[in-house]
Amino acid sequence: MRKTQKRILPIGFKANGLACGLKKSGKLDLALIYSQLPAKASAKFTTSSIIAAPLVVCKKHLKSAKRFQAVLINSGNANCFTGKSGINNAQAAADYLAQKLKIAKDSVLVSSTGIIGKRLDVAKIKQKVPELISGLSDSGIHQAKMAIMTTDTFAKEISLSLRINAKLVHIYGIAKGAGMIAPNMATMLCFIMTDAAITQRALDKALGSAVDKSFNCISVDGCMSTNDTVLVLANSAAGNKVIANGIDLQKFSQALEFLCLDLAKMVVSDAEGATKFIQIDVVQARHIQEAKKIALHIANSVLFKTAVFGQNPNFGRVVAAVGASGFQIKEEQLKIRLGSLKGKQVKLTVSLSRGKAKCTVYTSDLTPEYIKINAGYN
Amino acid sequence: MRKTQKRILPIGFKANGLACGLKKSGKLDLALIYSQLPAKASAKFTTSSIIAAPLVVCKKHLKSAKRFQAVLINSGNANCFTGKSGINNAQAAADYLAQKLKIAKDSVLVSSTGIIGKRLDVAKIKQKVPELISGLSDSGIHQAKMAIMTTDTFAKEISLSLRINAKLVHIYGIAKGAGMIAPNMATMLCFIMTDAAITQRALDKALGSAVDKSFNCISVDGCMSTNDTVLVLANSAAGNKVIANGIDLQKFSQALEFLCLDLAKMVVSDAEGATKFIQIDVVQARHIQEAKKIALHIANSVLFKTAVFGQNPNFGRVVAAVGASGFQIKEEQLKIRLGSLKGKQVKLTVSLSRGKAKCTVYTSDLTPEYIKINAGYN
Repeated sequence: MRKTQKRILPIGFKANGLACGLKKSGKLDLALIYSQLPAKASAKFTTSSIIAAPLVVCKKHLKSAKRFQAVLINSGNANCFTGKSGINNAQAAADYLAQKLKIAKDSVLVSSTGIIGKRLDVAKIKQKVPELISGLSDSGIHQAKMAIMTTDTFAKEISLSLRINAKLVHIYGIAKGAGMIAPNMATMLCFIMTDAAITQRALDKALGSAVDKSFNCISVDGCMSTNDTVLVLANSAAGNKVIANGIDLQKFSQALEFLCLDLAKMVVSDAEGATKFIQIDVVQARHIQEAKKIALHIANSVLFKTAVFGQNPNFGRVVAAVGASGFQIKEEQLKIRLGSLKGKQVKLTVSLSRGKAKCTVYTSDLTPEYIKINAGYN
Repeated sequence: MRKTQKRILPIGFKANGLACGLKKSGKLDLALIYSQLPAKASAKFTTSSIIAAPLVVCKKHLKSAKRFQAVLINSGNANCFTGKSGINNAQAAADYLAQKLKIAKDSVLVSSTGIIGKRLDVAKIKQKVPELISGLSDSGIHQAKMAIMTTDTFAKEISLSLRINAKLVHIYGIAKGAGMIAPNMATMLCFIMTDAAITQRALDKALGSAVDKSFNCISVDGCMSTNDTVLVLANSAAGNKVIANGIDLQKFSQALEFLCLDLAKMVVSDAEGATKFIQIDVVQARHIQEAKKIALHIANSVLFKTAVFGQNPNFGRVVAAVGASGFQIKEEQLKIRLGSLKGKQVKLTVSLSRGKAKCTVYTSDLTPEYIKINAGYN
């Protein structure tokens, strides 16, 4: 596996992005990812009980269809808490795109991010669909990655290649997210394309494992969103021997995990108003769930995050967060090592002295700027 | 029951407060509450697995003794994460006080609040114990309530009286807390004195119920502390018929709940850097636990609290918090009413349309000032 210097979109994929007027600023807000070959899909969604309309449509299509060719994404409006008409709007956008692309209706997936509770003006989207399609290209991924941004300050992408039985396989991912980031997962959207040939079961397994170790190990503000989506499309265009298990699946899974973790770290780096990137290693835990829950409890401690902002080595707040995590950790078991708080990168190691399991999570500091950004966002 | 205008310390109680040098500022930091008659005690402590040294000593004494006469409280140092020597220090302070007061060693309870992880200089406390004792008086409660403060901007107290079978019974409470406030409970200390005659069982029951409906229904920053304590001493000096059950216990419980809720609201009003006092009513829930958990989930949503600070009626963040609370609430069940955000008091009502249970919790907004306060505190 290697990170490709030159971004190479996997074979058979094209993309585009443009402004359709959902964002008042006039910035790009509509993206299309298209696979010329029907592709397998696998997805992970928010575990929130209230989910946005596009997720309802996606789940329906993922049930009824086996192959997918297009993902339509808008920013500027989450199309959530919009009732039945919200679902109708998401469906209408998907259907219209399918009609214009001349593909099966349920081979289209949809995604939205932005403000919750406002009606989505689907006419604006429909009006731009023909232009969105006619502009599809390899390089259009650069517009697409911009069009999915909300409060992000930079676009997030990564391109990997790996060899599966002498054939070169490509994986490309784009993501957005800068706040409302918490397992599982966040106002976090991630779209991954690969030309790998892979069984559905292997694709599901690889994505589940990759998301658990990446997007579910980051937290910006402990707020889970209604729209979180990680979606992978695999269109077999690389012509490799179909990945099913063994060493091939292992290689593909590692690559997918690397890609997801890299994007997840970019999301944390771009956390709203943040000045620090914090790595929290919980080690010597009884089991990985214990390590992960405790690490996330620290990552979500407002007091800890505030102390890091202030470059204030107040390890008492780590003690308090561990104590409150629900596990019976005793004071004498707890060893805390907090690295220098001067730089942009901060590392905290918490040892529980009672096992061999460990987990790493990533978070950011909490700053007055975060509050200013989110006090005004509407 | 009535709130007494003139603060009246229950019969047989005296108090004092002074500066012993634990706070660098030279402000009051050592308090003593004393009951001339041996009193029954009941207490609720933090549910954190890591608890401060004074809590270890308190729990030991509450087990070994049946009557108590003194509570020694220091601010400026939490005496937590201080290992075995921390427990020795807490015990030494208690023992020394018992010796000077000429009372049984285990009739003394101790409490600390302040920075975590720093050795408590017990010599400073011991040196001032004689002066603390000689200055005990009715009006000394005013020094005591000041001496337990940390980042509090005002002292919190309330005095109630009620009639139990024609006898006047008094209840007096003081509390501290302004940050690290979350169920269960917070860096929140509360000391309650009453001259009621009451059985141990009735006292435990009344306190448990009062704390559940007050201190466990507030949240400032979702951070549970290692030192939280609510303690009530009942010395029987009022001479009432012993409260055991029935209408008498009901009246006493109501009074205790009123007192605790009033103090809890004061803690929220004094939340670090806060500009708003937020009441969250969750109604039409299946059961009270559901209502309470959802209300607290909203109260702990950094994004919701930030929106209230910005007077930004972003009810999408309430939707997201409810969805993430772990209950299977459907969009169509959810009704949200968010009152005006202009004033200091903000009221949010969330109806779940699926039952008759309800719960009210109290919280504050999250502000740049909170971050500044906590970034610097050490």
